[in-house]
Amino acid sequence: MESCDEVLELIRRGADEILIEQELLTKLKSGRPLRVKAGFDPTAPDLHLGHTVLINKLKHFQDLGHQVLFLIGDFTGMIGDPTGKNATRPPLTREQIVENAKTYQEQVFRILDPERTEICFNSQWMDGLGAAGMIRLAAQHTVARMLERDDFSKRYANNQPIAIHEFLYPLCQGYDSVAMRADVELGGTDQKFNLLVGRELQKQAGQAPQVILMMPLLEGLDGVNKMSKSLGNYIGINEAPREIFGKMMSVSDELMWRYFDLLSFRPNAEIAALRQAVSEGRNPRGVKVELAQEIVARFHGAAAARDALADFEARFQHGAIPDDIEEIKLSAGSGISIVQILKQTALTSSTSEAIRMIGQGGVRVDGEKVSDKNLQFAPGCTIVVQVGKRKFARVSLA
Amino acid sequence: MESCDEVLELIRRGADEILIEQELLTKLKSGRPLRVKAGFDPTAPDLHLGHTVLINKLKHFQDLGHQVLFLIGDFTGMIGDPTGKNATRPPLTREQIVENAKTYQEQVFRILDPERTEICFNSQWMDGLGAAGMIRLAAQHTVARMLERDDFSKRYANNQPIAIHEFLYPLCQGYDSVAMRADVELGGTDQKFNLLVGRELQKQAGQAPQVILMMPLLEGLDGVNKMSKSLGNYIGINEAPREIFGKMMSVSDELMWRYFDLLSFRPNAEIAALRQAVSEGRNPRGVKVELAQEIVARFHGAAAARDALADFEARFQHGAIPDDIEEIKLSAGSGISIVQILKQTALTSSTSEAIRMIGQGGVRVDGEKVSDKNLQFAPGCTIVVQVGKRKFARVSLA
Repeated sequence: MESCDEVLELIRRGADEILIEQELLTKLKSGRPLRVKAGFDPTAPDLHLGHTVLINKLKHFQDLGHQVLFLIGDFTGMIGDPTGKNATRPPLTREQIVENAKTYQEQVFRILDPERTEICFNSQWMDGLGAAGMIRLAAQHTVARMLERDDFSKRYANNQPIAIHEFLYPLCQGYDSVAMRADVELGGTDQKFNLLVGRELQKQAGQAPQVILMMPLLEGLDGVNKMSKSLGNYIGINEAPREIFGKMMSVSDELMWRYFDLLSFRPNAEIAALRQAVSEGRNPRGVKVELAQEIVARFHGAAAARDALADFEARFQHGAIPDDIEEIKLSAGSGISIVQILKQTALTSSTSEAIRMIGQGGVRVDGEKVSDKNLQFAPGCTIVVQVGKRKFARVSLA
Repeated sequence: MESCDEVLELIRRGADEILIEQELLTKLKSGRPLRVKAGFDPTAPDLHLGHTVLINKLKHFQDLGHQVLFLIGDFTGMIGDPTGKNATRPPLTREQIVENAKTYQEQVFRILDPERTEICFNSQWMDGLGAAGMIRLAAQHTVARMLERDDFSKRYANNQPIAIHEFLYPLCQGYDSVAMRADVELGGTDQKFNLLVGRELQKQAGQAPQVILMMPLLEGLDGVNKMSKSLGNYIGINEAPREIFGKMMSVSDELMWRYFDLLSFRPNAEIAALRQAVSEGRNPRGVKVELAQEIVARFHGAAAARDALADFEARFQHGAIPDDIEEIKLSAGSGISIVQILKQTALTSSTSEAIRMIGQGGVRVDGEKVSDKNLQFAPGCTIVVQVGKRKFARVSLA
């Protein structure tokens, strides 16, 4: 086993907060494989790199010899939103959840080691809890403390209704930790309150409280908003290799370092060396290519990564793409056409020129020839637009 | 069936509030037997007249041909107080609850008609609800509305903890009404919030909401505090006939009319006639004897009532007890001795005279000779103290 310092360095990497690090040290020193829990929605997953931040951290623990408990919250998933107000949370059937779990596995086992991963379903213990068990669980927390949670306190202050079952969900999540005897639970920074409930319930159940480790929410391709499918600023891990590669190459030089920290598996020392080289004049584009290749290789293998690079270079006519192309921000409203983009970025002098250039096959987006003048783009995405051989712009749509 | 006016008069008698009376009228007019629910603790019952106020109202409904649902809350009884803070609410076993239910039946069937009474246990449907059902139930109410309940809002404002399961109990009570398809629920005035929750849940379940009928809390023998065992100001329905009779005779003339309304089964018209007679000069003592006899007869039969009266008259030496003996209020602190009572009421001129009179057998309390000078009395009780043949006082201990 690595030295404690090396271990802690790996665990701390990218983490926003660890509570309580001293307890983590004690657990690590015990020498036994720790039970590292992370909870996931039972809805059909279509994972993007934002999700993998947490999964990567699970992998760090696996690499150190620990056991990952990949918890699928099927119990509440089968309830859905009982108030019926949230149409995006319809109740799922047992079959749907099993299906979704399979889809999860296909995706996460591109990162995690199946040998050291246990897929758990919380219905296993929640169903057995019964109505009486739920009441006993509810007795372990007070209304006042629950109302201290940020979103609850705001809604209460603003007279926005909080249904009582919303108080039960953090307790269910905490009870999962008790049932699973979790040593560590990972979650996003937005999960802090719920993660702490787990600590309390474990203490009340006579268990050593879990260490909680919170990971930041990954920024999307725009470098501003959280990566999310609905904002369109994401890279899906199931996307085609060339697509992933192109999107990785479109991120800003600054955001690239953030992605290195949270997405790359390269040792900290190597990343530090790359930073040093860039600060001493190395073209960041080459570094970005390395990161793009690593990510593509992770999800599609090394050959796909090499192919994506070759394709990317061919499309952008190796050497012709300028190192620092102009960055332009445009408001896309509810959608903007390629013609409007060409005109508003002044890549063409007029709408009619834009239509003519498209007709001649002289317009490319992310290297792909555009043939449809009505092609629409949604706000949130960033594209590299090329007109003819020499006119480029990186366009961020807001 | 009686006319609607007569029916409503009987149902309204003694009631503090009926919500909503128009709905009740509609239900009564339907002609079908209504399902009339009242919930009771599953703890070992030792019923006193205070409890019978509600049971008497159930009997009114039975007399009108309706079905009484006598609900024993065994589900929550088996949970007890899960916070462990309330030592007076230990969890009960199924066997204890069945035993307690039997004791209930022995007592309430002295008032209710067993043929028109269904004893229900809410574990029957609550156990089947499961953890998921409890969450769905909790989704049907908001935190803000729950915090409007009087005791919750006060505790929240005073920073006194409210455990979350306390929010679930009113929902459980309301769900009982759904499961039982109650047409009417009876409860004390302190139950208003919980009774209203039942109406809401029934509406959400697509049922016609139950009418709720709230009965006042009966004052104890002191005429001030709610009748309660812990205050000592009660008449237990299992007490000996002579005991019940004597205690009934000790109530003030004013309280007697309250007891007539809430405890007697005599028609309103008869009670009005008695009031009229007293206001025209009839000695209220004779009226009180009639009430005392009715109550004793209800629980012990007519022969016991006659015997109790004869005994009472013999003990108080028929004709010797003055009609309007002096009423004296004393502070009993945590307990007061007969010697102190004699001195403070000036029935004896000194402590030593009090001791001497007791020694000579010249002191009686409620007609019973006192031989122990250390005999203690608790605050809350009212006693008739007699020294020699002619000195009397009715002493209320606070």
